[in-house]
Amino acid sequence: MKDLRQITVIGVGLLGSSITLGVSRCFPGVKTVGYAHRAVTRRKARVLSVATEIVGDLKKSVAEADVVILATPISTFERVFCEIGGALRDGCVVTDVGSTKVLPHRWAARLLGRRVDYVGSHPIAGSEQRGLDYGRDDLFVGALCILTTAGRSSGRAVTLLKQFWSALGCDVRLMKPAEHDRVFGRVSHLPHVTAAALINAVDAADLRYAGRGFMDTSRIASGPASIWVDVVLANAGNVSRGIDRIVEELSKIKKAVDAGRAERIEALLESARRKRAAVVKQELRRKGVIS
Amino acid sequence: MKDLRQITVIGVGLLGSSITLGVSRCFPGVKTVGYAHRAVTRRKARVLSVATEIVGDLKKSVAEADVVILATPISTFERVFCEIGGALRDGCVVTDVGSTKVLPHRWAARLLGRRVDYVGSHPIAGSEQRGLDYGRDDLFVGALCILTTAGRSSGRAVTLLKQFWSALGCDVRLMKPAEHDRVFGRVSHLPHVTAAALINAVDAADLRYAGRGFMDTSRIASGPASIWVDVVLANAGNVSRGIDRIVEELSKIKKAVDAGRAERIEALLESARRKRAAVVKQELRRKGVIS
Repeated sequence: MKDLRQITVIGVGLLGSSITLGVSRCFPGVKTVGYAHRAVTRRKARVLSVATEIVGDLKKSVAEADVVILATPISTFERVFCEIGGALRDGCVVTDVGSTKVLPHRWAARLLGRRVDYVGSHPIAGSEQRGLDYGRDDLFVGALCILTTAGRSSGRAVTLLKQFWSALGCDVRLMKPAEHDRVFGRVSHLPHVTAAALINAVDAADLRYAGRGFMDTSRIASGPASIWVDVVLANAGNVSRGIDRIVEELSKIKKAVDAGRAERIEALLESARRKRAAVVKQELRRKGVIS
Repeated sequence: MKDLRQITVIGVGLLGSSITLGVSRCFPGVKTVGYAHRAVTRRKARVLSVATEIVGDLKKSVAEADVVILATPISTFERVFCEIGGALRDGCVVTDVGSTKVLPHRWAARLLGRRVDYVGSHPIAGSEQRGLDYGRDDLFVGALCILTTAGRSSGRAVTLLKQFWSALGCDVRLMKPAEHDRVFGRVSHLPHVTAAALINAVDAADLRYAGRGFMDTSRIASGPASIWVDVVLANAGNVSRGIDRIVEELSKIKKAVDAGRAERIEALLESARRKRAAVVKQELRRKGVIS
C-alpha cells in the first residue's frame, strides 16, 4: 500500500463517491481521480469535493492510476474495459464494485490483457438511495466485502485489495465468482425481485393500509429499477433458480393453509424464524455486541 | 366515555398490557382489570403494575366491565366468548385486537347474545417482540386502528370505541369484516408468509452473507410462529389467494429474466418502485411531515 499514489474511480455515484471520500480519509497522501460521464455530475462532484480531481476523459483518468475501480452499472463494464485496456499502466490493479462477478471476470479476461491484474470486489454496502449526494466516507465501515479471484488473479493484487477494503472498514472474504453469484443470487437478488413481486401482488388501493411489516418487507424494491435490471440479467440463471425455490416454499405454505394443517404451517414458519434468529446472532457476534 | 368506569383486558401480553397502560395514561379515573391465565404472568403483571387489578378468574374479571377487550390469540376467542357470554353486564361493549375479523364476528354473533355489543378492533401496532415486558403506554400513538362492524353492531358501541382508540392515539377507520380480512390478507399476512418462504428458500450456510436488504425483507418472519399460525388459518382463503397472486408476479419476473427481456423486467420493477413511493408519500402526509 506504500507505493499507492493514485486511485481512479470510474463513476462517482453513491458507491464511487463514498470510495473516493473514504480514501481521502484513510490514505490522505493518495491522489483520488473520479471519472464522470456527464458534465453536470462533474460540476456537482467538484462542488462537493468528492475527489482530488474530477475528469471527463476516461483514458486520461486511468493513465496514471495504480488502482482502478469501476463503480458504474454492470452493463457498462464491457465497454469500459474495452476502452481503458490499452491506457492502463503495467501492473495496474483493476477491480469493480458490481453486484455480480461471473460476467465481470469473463469480460476482464477478454478485454484487459495480461499486463494488468483484475480481481472482483463486492462491498455489501449502499442503500436504496443513489447519487453522489449520499456519498459518505464511512459507508463501508463494518460492511462485508467479497473479493473474487479467477484462475490467474495475482496474489499481489488480492493482497493489495484486501488491505485497501480493510482500511475503508470492510470485513474482507474471498470467493470464486460462480460461488459469489450463486450466494448473492439468493441473499440479495432474490429478495429484491420478491419485494417487487409482493408490491405488484397488492392492489394500489389496498396499499394505503400497509403497516411497518409491509414497508420493511418491500423496502429494497425502492432501489433504482434500471440498476437492478442490470444485476438481475447479469445473474439470470441464479435469479431464475432462486424464484423457483421461493415459489416452491410458498407452495408448501399454501398447501398447508388450504388443508388447515396448523402443525405443518407452524413448522414452516418456525424453521424460518429460527434460521433468521441464527443470522441475527451471528451478525451481533461479528459486530462484537455479544460474544 | 364519561360513564366509563371499568375496562377489562383479557390477556396482558404486548398489546394487552399496552392497552391497560395507555388507559391509565389517557383515562386516569378508569379502573383497568387485566386477566391472565397463568399465575407467573399475573405475578409479573402485578410487579410491573400494568393494570389497577390483575385477576385469574375470567368471569369475575368481566362482571363489572363497561368495555371488554380480548387480547389473546385468535384461537382462544371462541372459548372466551362462550365463557364470558353469561357473565357480562347488559350493554357491555366487547371488542378484540385480533388480526382477522370475519371469524371473531361470527363467534360473537353466536356466543355473546344480544344483551351486549360486539365491534371488532384491529390496531395496527406491535412488533416482532411479545410479552408484557415490551408493553408501553404509547404503543398505539400514530397507529391505524380498523373498527369492523357487522349488520347489528350498535352505533353507540362504534362511537365509544372510536373515541377510545382515538384517545390512545389511533387514527380510526371503519370497515366491513370481509373487506378487512381481504385487505390485511394482502398487506400483512401475505408479507409474513412471503418473508418465511424467502428464508426457507435460502440455505443456512449462505445466510451468513445476508445483508441489510435481506434482513429487512425477512424481519417480520421473526414474529412468534404460534400466533401467526392462528392468523393465517383464521384468514386461510385470503392468504391462499394472496400466495397465488405473488406466485403469479414472481413468474412474470422469471419469464422476463429467462427471456433476457430487460425492458419487461424494468417495467415490473419500476411499477413496484412507484407503488411503494406513493405509499411512503401518503404515510409522510398522514404524519404531517409533508403537505
